Amino acid sequence: MAISDFLASGIERLDRQLLFTAEIDKMTTVLRRTRLLDGSRCENDAEHSWHIAVMALLFAEYAIEPVDVSRAVQMCVVHDLVEIYAGDTFAYDVVGNRDKAERERLAADRLYAQLPPEQGALLRALWEEFDAMETADAKYAACLDRIQPFLHNTLTEGYTWRDGKTDRAAVEKRMAVVRAFMPTVYAWIEANLDRSIAIGWLRA
Amino acid sequence: MAISDFLASGIERLDRQLLFTAEIDKMTTVLRRTRLLDGSRCENDAEHSWHIAVMALLFAEYAIEPVDVSRAVQMCVVHDLVEIYAGDTFAYDVVGNRDKAERERLAADRLYAQLPPEQGALLRALWEEFDAMETADAKYAACLDRIQPFLHNTLTEGYTWRDGKTDRAAVEKRMAVVRAFMPTVYAWIEANLDRSIAIGWLRA
Repeated sequence: MAISDFLASGIERLDRQLLFTAEIDKMTTVLRRTRLLDGSRCENDAEHSWHIAVMALLFAEYAIEPVDVSRAVQMCVVHDLVEIYAGDTFAYDVVGNRDKAERERLAADRLYAQLPPEQGALLRALWEEFDAMETADAKYAACLDRIQPFLHNTLTEGYTWRDGKTDRAAVEKRMAVVRAFMPTVYAWIEANLDRSIAIGWLRA
Repeated sequence: MAISDFLASGIERLDRQLLFTAEIDKMTTVLRRTRLLDGSRCENDAEHSWHIAVMALLFAEYAIEPVDVSRAVQMCVVHDLVEIYAGDTFAYDVVGNRDKAERERLAADRLYAQLPPEQGALLRALWEEFDAMETADAKYAACLDRIQPFLHNTLTEGYTWRDGKTDRAAVEKRMAVVRAFMPTVYAWIEANLDRSIAIGWLRA
């Protein structure tokens, strides 16, 4: 592809929106550690974001506080956009997570400056809310962001846990928001942790 | 993967929701004709659905009627789910489009039966509304569903138009909803059609 092939519309605002749309196609090239369920390859950020957006329509009943599903869906579709420039930081990568916040802030500056200002601010606010995990909608979206790869791991023989560095305590820490905000689903997670350790998919 | 590895939660409703979540991962294997912008491969339905869901947050100002953006985003994330069983029907495939409606209806029966009934009905209603293209929200989502692959084509030298069967009239027919519902964007489409024919990316 050549972005130089882009034909300007004559309306600067529309051009920005179309070019931003083209730019975020790069989400398809940001690979995660999660394996697709057909085992063919690792999932990318576009696929993951879509997957949890659909989940947002289905799991609100397990949240301990009322959730605005439509806001959560929107948060899900934009929550990883900064990774276009900041890259995906593996949840269990201790070193990579040290400067994650700073890398993502700089990425957000760069990404959202490409949109008309009030639209950049809107998408950025959704991401910041997600990242802060303080509102009910953000906690719900964060839970889905944890449950989806967890489900994948239970169906791919613990694929992403087999790096030799991930143990039960690390997964429990990552799943803490689910434990607190969606305890019914957490009971299922806990049973899976027990089994995964018994089978040898995850270190105790 | 083995879906037989799924550990039941003891709550039938939750199991259905989790298994449905696993099932729709198959969207990552439904390939479209659209090329990713890095040229590496064809886009899949999960990526496409995510992409137009983000667009739904950005382009409502060009719709000739007020649009409920949050409903449109939801419609975008579910609009192609039936293709898990019905497959993607190329927009310019005349034969494939003859029995598309019937194939997709059967696919919807099969897919949505896997969810708790009221959730299956909710997702199906969103898809049916999208497909009927009668409400403003559905027309808006349908426009995005056309604009996104069109944008990709303009940035990949008309990749999907090079099947020898697609001509300007076919693309114009496909873009009719944009012409009617988002005329400002359609002006940009028309200019691109002129250029694409001049360059030889599209047959006149």
